[in-house]
Amino acid sequence: MSASVWFNGRLVKDASLSLDPSDRGLLLGDGVFETIAVFNAKAIWLDDHLQRLRGAAAALGLTADRTNIEAAVKDLLGQAQDRHGIMRITLTRGPGVRGLAAEGSRPSLLATLSPWVRDSVFAPASLVTSSVRRNETSPASRLKTLSYIDNILAAREASSKRCDDALLLNTRGNVASTTIANLFILRGGRLSTPPLSAGILPGIARKKLMAFAKGEERELTPADLKDADAVFLTNSLRLIRPVHSLDGTTLRRNDVALTGYLDQLCKLIAEESGIDPRKADAL
Amino acid sequence: MSASVWFNGRLVKDASLSLDPSDRGLLLGDGVFETIAVFNAKAIWLDDHLQRLRGAAAALGLTADRTNIEAAVKDLLGQAQDRHGIMRITLTRGPGVRGLAAEGSRPSLLATLSPWVRDSVFAPASLVTSSVRRNETSPASRLKTLSYIDNILAAREASSKRCDDALLLNTRGNVASTTIANLFILRGGRLSTPPLSAGILPGIARKKLMAFAKGEERELTPADLKDADAVFLTNSLRLIRPVHSLDGTTLRRNDVALTGYLDQLCKLIAEESGIDPRKADAL
Repeated sequence: MSASVWFNGRLVKDASLSLDPSDRGLLLGDGVFETIAVFNAKAIWLDDHLQRLRGAAAALGLTADRTNIEAAVKDLLGQAQDRHGIMRITLTRGPGVRGLAAEGSRPSLLATLSPWVRDSVFAPASLVTSSVRRNETSPASRLKTLSYIDNILAAREASSKRCDDALLLNTRGNVASTTIANLFILRGGRLSTPPLSAGILPGIARKKLMAFAKGEERELTPADLKDADAVFLTNSLRLIRPVHSLDGTTLRRNDVALTGYLDQLCKLIAEESGIDPRKADAL
Repeated sequence: MSASVWFNGRLVKDASLSLDPSDRGLLLGDGVFETIAVFNAKAIWLDDHLQRLRGAAAALGLTADRTNIEAAVKDLLGQAQDRHGIMRITLTRGPGVRGLAAEGSRPSLLATLSPWVRDSVFAPASLVTSSVRRNETSPASRLKTLSYIDNILAAREASSKRCDDALLLNTRGNVASTTIANLFILRGGRLSTPPLSAGILPGIARKKLMAFAKGEERELTPADLKDADAVFLTNSLRLIRPVHSLDGTTLRRNDVALTGYLDQLCKLIAEESGIDPRKADAL
């Protein structure tokens, strides 16, 4: 399956967008997005993702037209011939006059469906603590906006140190998340994750896990990670990812507990799509 | 003069770009830009702007092809029939595969020339302190990247409070800048501005002013602004802008000193372009 592209009302055949050069998404990272797993041509946890998209858009003063978004999703899923993939929905403020506070004339909506990435579920991760802090003073730290440069800088730093992802602390020195995932710890049977006020995205996989595993939100310090029985990451594509090391120090693992969580997330997905994501992952 | 547009090698006639839907500028705010004043079809302080662009690109691991950029500038200036305008050069990491640390295949270069905005030079400004802090822990706080959402949120906050711009403190509570300008204070004849380590852009007008006015870099607190004899802003388009109020409190002004600084900046520009920007501004 090559990528399918939908832009401002229709599927795009020639694989390039006709974009207004004043689009504030391109010029200023002024917009929001969602990344959604697709199994058996079903967009997983779609309502949660669209609700988060609408919330983030509202926080930026952007209109997220429900009919338009639903049309994009439907058109793209109709193209999902190989059944599994990754859908991304991108909403920008659209073309605008100069000026940071200016309103756009009409939001731009881009949606793409890319091939599924194999071997991503439950892939163990090494982390390095980034020198870039997560800015919890900004509402954008809790929104999936297009302004991703801090995450990109941290991810490049991690990559240069041959690590899989970067641990982001916030400006108070507490644990926030990684560049692409929420973070959890297990300690003495208790499941804990930072609260939104730490400057994190309200992850969808995080929300699902919290619902069935009865975790608690609390401030976590870097020391909490080193003392934990297990540290792991969640996101909508990789679901659960054990963390095996932090800054070169091997962390304790409890893959039995983590596999239990993964089983429950996979069960939820199978209820929507008819397939266990681990089967799609091993294609 | 309507906007002229140059994209990836040529002037664009139909006012829309043919953009790859995986362009990381659009998807992730992954790129850098410059905004340059044009008077009498001359791009002002061009070498300084291009040097800053190349430095920012290098910090992100991006190649800024000098020949390509110079061609864009030359082609656009050839379109500057009405002589004065605002040039913006935008460089993105270009199309890329998924993954924050992924390299782009080829950077995208967009350059535009828009009409000059009248009455912008020396326009007095009211400021409100933003709740969004400038994240000086990130190298991006010192680079003009496309990820502008924190500035946009702060500018919208200021606009909703009927102020002209937002004062951004950094995470230590010291003064950084506004959303679009560097900040200076005058006190007892001494000119001071925050250092780059406060999380600010190395402004070009700031650099020119520092060169002839022998200012000092030092950490400034919000109280320093209220105690100052004058507070003012600098950027490449508005040059000098007096601040008349902060959070509703009227600030002291010294427009004689500030007009002196403006005279000197205008003289530098007249040497390059043959015209005083205040004449262009009053068109």
